[in-house]
Amino acid sequence: MSTMTYNVRVFDIMPENTAIVHFTEQLYALAKNRKLKIESHSNRKGVYIEHIICLKNLLKPKEIGISKSLAHELKVSDGEEVSVEILSYTPADSYTFIRKRMDGVTLTKKEIDAIIDDIVNTRMSDIEMTSLILTLYFKEFDISEITDLARSIAEHGEIIDFGDNIVFDKHSIGGVPGNKVSLLIVPIIAAAGLLIPKTSSRAITSPSGTADTMEAIGCQVSFTADEIKKITKKTKGMIVWGGSLNLAPADDILISKVEYPLKINPRSMMMASILAKKIAMNVNYLVLDIPTGKGTKMASQEEAAVFARDFKEIARRLGIRAESGITYGGTPVGHAIGPALEAREAIEALLHPASAPKSLTVKSCRLAGILLEISGKALEGQGYNMAKEILYSGKAAQKFAEIVREQHGPETLDPNSIELGQYTAEIMAPSEGWIVEIDNKAITEVARAAGAPYDKGAGVYFIKKIDSVNAGEPIIRIYSNSESRLDAALALYQQLQPITMESMLLNRI
Amino acid sequence: MSTMTYNVRVFDIMPENTAIVHFTEQLYALAKNRKLKIESHSNRKGVYIEHIICLKNLLKPKEIGISKSLAHELKVSDGEEVSVEILSYTPADSYTFIRKRMDGVTLTKKEIDAIIDDIVNTRMSDIEMTSLILTLYFKEFDISEITDLARSIAEHGEIIDFGDNIVFDKHSIGGVPGNKVSLLIVPIIAAAGLLIPKTSSRAITSPSGTADTMEAIGCQVSFTADEIKKITKKTKGMIVWGGSLNLAPADDILISKVEYPLKINPRSMMMASILAKKIAMNVNYLVLDIPTGKGTKMASQEEAAVFARDFKEIARRLGIRAESGITYGGTPVGHAIGPALEAREAIEALLHPASAPKSLTVKSCRLAGILLEISGKALEGQGYNMAKEILYSGKAAQKFAEIVREQHGPETLDPNSIELGQYTAEIMAPSEGWIVEIDNKAITEVARAAGAPYDKGAGVYFIKKIDSVNAGEPIIRIYSNSESRLDAALALYQQLQPITMESMLLNRI
Repeated sequence: MSTMTYNVRVFDIMPENTAIVHFTEQLYALAKNRKLKIESHSNRKGVYIEHIICLKNLLKPKEIGISKSLAHELKVSDGEEVSVEILSYTPADSYTFIRKRMDGVTLTKKEIDAIIDDIVNTRMSDIEMTSLILTLYFKEFDISEITDLARSIAEHGEIIDFGDNIVFDKHSIGGVPGNKVSLLIVPIIAAAGLLIPKTSSRAITSPSGTADTMEAIGCQVSFTADEIKKITKKTKGMIVWGGSLNLAPADDILISKVEYPLKINPRSMMMASILAKKIAMNVNYLVLDIPTGKGTKMASQEEAAVFARDFKEIARRLGIRAESGITYGGTPVGHAIGPALEAREAIEALLHPASAPKSLTVKSCRLAGILLEISGKALEGQGYNMAKEILYSGKAAQKFAEIVREQHGPETLDPNSIELGQYTAEIMAPSEGWIVEIDNKAITEVARAAGAPYDKGAGVYFIKKIDSVNAGEPIIRIYSNSESRLDAALALYQQLQPITMESMLLNRI
Repeated sequence: MSTMTYNVRVFDIMPENTAIVHFTEQLYALAKNRKLKIESHSNRKGVYIEHIICLKNLLKPKEIGISKSLAHELKVSDGEEVSVEILSYTPADSYTFIRKRMDGVTLTKKEIDAIIDDIVNTRMSDIEMTSLILTLYFKEFDISEITDLARSIAEHGEIIDFGDNIVFDKHSIGGVPGNKVSLLIVPIIAAAGLLIPKTSSRAITSPSGTADTMEAIGCQVSFTADEIKKITKKTKGMIVWGGSLNLAPADDILISKVEYPLKINPRSMMMASILAKKIAMNVNYLVLDIPTGKGTKMASQEEAAVFARDFKEIARRLGIRAESGITYGGTPVGHAIGPALEAREAIEALLHPASAPKSLTVKSCRLAGILLEISGKALEGQGYNMAKEILYSGKAAQKFAEIVREQHGPETLDPNSIELGQYTAEIMAPSEGWIVEIDNKAITEVARAAGAPYDKGAGVYFIKKIDSVNAGEPIIRIYSNSESRLDAALALYQQLQPITMESMLLNRI
C-alpha cells in the first residue's frame, strides 16, 4: 500500500496513540478500522497509531496531529515531514497457535506461553482473545494443557514467596449467593495455627464478593505482598483483595475483556485461573468448594465430581494438594445476601454459632475440617469436629477480631455497627404452605438491582427460607440506600418471582 | 454510577460517535474503554459515545465536544447543558441469542434478524461478532438457520430489482489462484442473450479478485444500481465490484472485523454470505464453482458434494435454482497469477481459445454450459458444446470487448497493452523430470509478496506447469514493480518451495 507524506503537528492528546487529520482528509476514509504507521523522514523511527479522528479547523490539509509522547518517540517536532502508511491487519504472532487449537491440535507449553505473553503485553487484540475463550468453550483443553496454562498465567505475574511456611487456602468456584463461608473458615484455620493468606475477589456477577463483604465491615482489603507477609506472621490469616496484587494479570485481562462481557467461563479456563492464583500465592494445600445444584455452575453431582477429579490431578501436577468439597448450592447460603447483610450474618455466626443458619456454620466447618485433616492437625474423620470446636469455643471469633483489627477495621466485632440500606421493603407470602424453591439467579439479580455490591448496604434478607409460612407473612426484606433502586428491585422481584411455594398455582393454561 | 453536567460544543468530527474533552478532564480517565451516554437536559434525548479523546487548547473544563450529527440527534446547540453518564458494559440486545446458540439452541428468523440488525447498526461489539463467528465455526447452523441468515443479511442491505428479467450468475467459493473464469463465462452467457450482471470481489487473501483483474484491463468496476441496470440492458453482461453497492453490509462487516483478521470462514457463513448477495442481485439461476483438492477450501470431493447438496437446498428455499460444478483446484487455473497477468491470459483465451490453457477454457465452458442448460438455451448435455461454440466463434471475445467499453475500458482488446511489472526474475528447474505438484497457498503467498493485488503488474507466471522439464530450464517468472518486493518474493519462493518434482529428493534424514 502506498505511503503518504504529512507534516507533523504536536498536541496534548489522549489516548496517546491517536492521530488527528483535517476534516475532509481522504486518509481518514482509507484508514478507518486500520492501524497507521508513522515514520520520521529524518531518522526512520516509527510509531503505530490505533485511533484516527477527523476534526475541522484544527489542522490544515496534509497535516497530521500526534501526541507529545509519540513526537518524542519519533524525535520529530512541529512542521517536520513524516510518512504515513496504512497497515494491513497484523495478528498477534501467537494467534497462529489459537487458530491451530481451533482445529484440534494440542498446544505445547511454549505455545501457551507465547499466547499468555502476547496477552499480558497487550499485543493480542480483543477478537483474538475472544477466539481463545470461545475455542476453550467448544474444545476444552486437556489436563496437560490446563496445567501448562495455569503455570504460564502464574509465571506472567507476581509470585509471592512465603519462604518455608506451608500455605493453606480455601476457594469457591462460586455460583451460589450468600456464600460468606470464608469469613468463618479463615479464622478457624488461622486459629488452628495454620497460615491462610486468603486472596478473594470483588463481585463480578454476584451480589457480594468476599472482598466486598470485608470492606462492609470496615476492613482495608488492598495490601502489598510485603504487608501480607508481615501481617500474616502475626495473625496467620488474612482476607485481602487479590486484584491489588498483580497476580495472574492475563486472567484478569481475559475476564474483563471477554469472559465477563460475553458471560462465558469455560471449564478449562476456570481451573487454570484458580490454580494460577494459587501458584502465585505459593499455596501448598487447598480445599475447593464446588456448589452444586440448580442455578449453580455445576448442574449435577456427576459433573461436579468429574470437575473435582480433574482439578485434583492438575493441582497435583502443579505441586498443590487439593481436595474438593461438593456442597449443596441450590439455595443461598445463610439468610443474608449483599455486602453489609452478609458481613453481619458472618459475624453473628462467629459470635453465636449455635443460633446461626446451619447452611453457613456446618458448611464452613466441613470445608475447614478438610484442611485440618490434610494438614495433619486433625485425624482422618475428625476435622469437622475440630473446626466446630474452634468455632463454638469462640476462638474463631477472637481470631477474626484480630484479623479485622490488623486490616484496619473496627476494634471490636459488632454486627449491629455495620450499616444496612436505609430504605427497606418486605415481600409477603402469597399463600400458606411451604417455600420449596429459591431461584439463585433471580435472587442475585434482585439484590444487584437494589444496588449490591456497589451500595454496600443493599441486598436481600430471607426472613424465611425453605420453611413453612402463613399467607401474608413477611418472607423477604430488600434493603437499599436509594428509593428508586429499591423500587426497581421490587419490580424485578415481581417479574422474576424467585420463590416457589408448593401451594402456588404454577401456571394456568 | 453518577452523572455529570457538561456544556456542549459542536464540531465537525469523525467518527461521529466521538466526544472530545479538555486535556485534564477526569471524565477521560473514568470513561476509558467504556461507553458514554449523553442526554440533553431540555428534551431528555440521548446518544451514545464510543470514543472519547482528550485534547488541550480546544475546550474549556466542563465542555464536551460532539459531532454535528449527534448534536442534531440530541437537538442541542453550542453551550447547552447535557448530562454525561458513564455506562457499564452493555451487551447488544441480540447477544443473548448468540449466547443461547452456543449452547445448541436453534435460532428463529426473528432472533437472526435481531442479530443482523444489531450488526448493521453498529450496536454489536467486535467481541460479540467474534463469538457469533466462532460459534458458527464450532456449531454449524442448520439448513433453516442458514436460509434465514441469508435472507436476513440480504434484507438488511440494498436489493437491486431487475424487474421481470431473469438473472443468471456464476460464483466461485474461491481457494484456487489464477481462477479468472468469470472473464470468459460472463461474455459467453451474455453472448447467448442471458442477463448476467456479475458482482465480484476484490482480493482479500488471494493474489487477484475478479474486480482487481477487470481494473488491470482498465475498466471501471464501481457502478450504481441504476448504471448497472442501464448498461446491462445493452450488454446483458457486466463484471462490477460488489463492494460499491451496499449489498449485504452485515456480511462485509463480519468479514472485515472478524473473518479476515482471524482467518476463519465458517461453512454456514460462507453459504449465507454467497446467497445473501445473490438475493440482493435478484439472481434466479446460479452456477457455483467449488474448487476441490489440496490447498482449496474443500479437501475432498465428498466434502464438496455435501456442500453442493446443502447449498442447492438452501438456494431452493430462497427461490434460487443453483447447480454446483465441483472442479479440480489442486493446481492454479491457467498459467497466470496476479491482476495484469490474469487479465492478459483471459483476453488471450477469448481471442485465441485453441491455444489457451485447457484448465481455463474447458473449466469456463463447463460452468457456462451448466447455466445454458438450466436456462433452456441448450439441451441437456449440450451446454458445454454451445459454450465452446460461442467461445471458439469469437462471439464471447466480441461481447467482452463490448462490456469492457461500457465499463470505460480500452476501445479494443489487446492483451499486450496491459502493463506487467517492470522487474522480473526466473526460477529454474532444479533437476530434470516432471513437475508433479504445485502448492496453491505457497504460490499465492509468493505472488502477494511480489505486490499482488495492489501492484497490478505483480504476480507469478508458470512457463511450465504440470509438465516435463530439463534441469536449469526456466519454469516460473515472477513480476513486480518494486525491486525490493521482487527480492522478497524470490526469498519466499526459496523458503516455501511451492513446486515439487518427482525427481527431487524430498527429505534426507
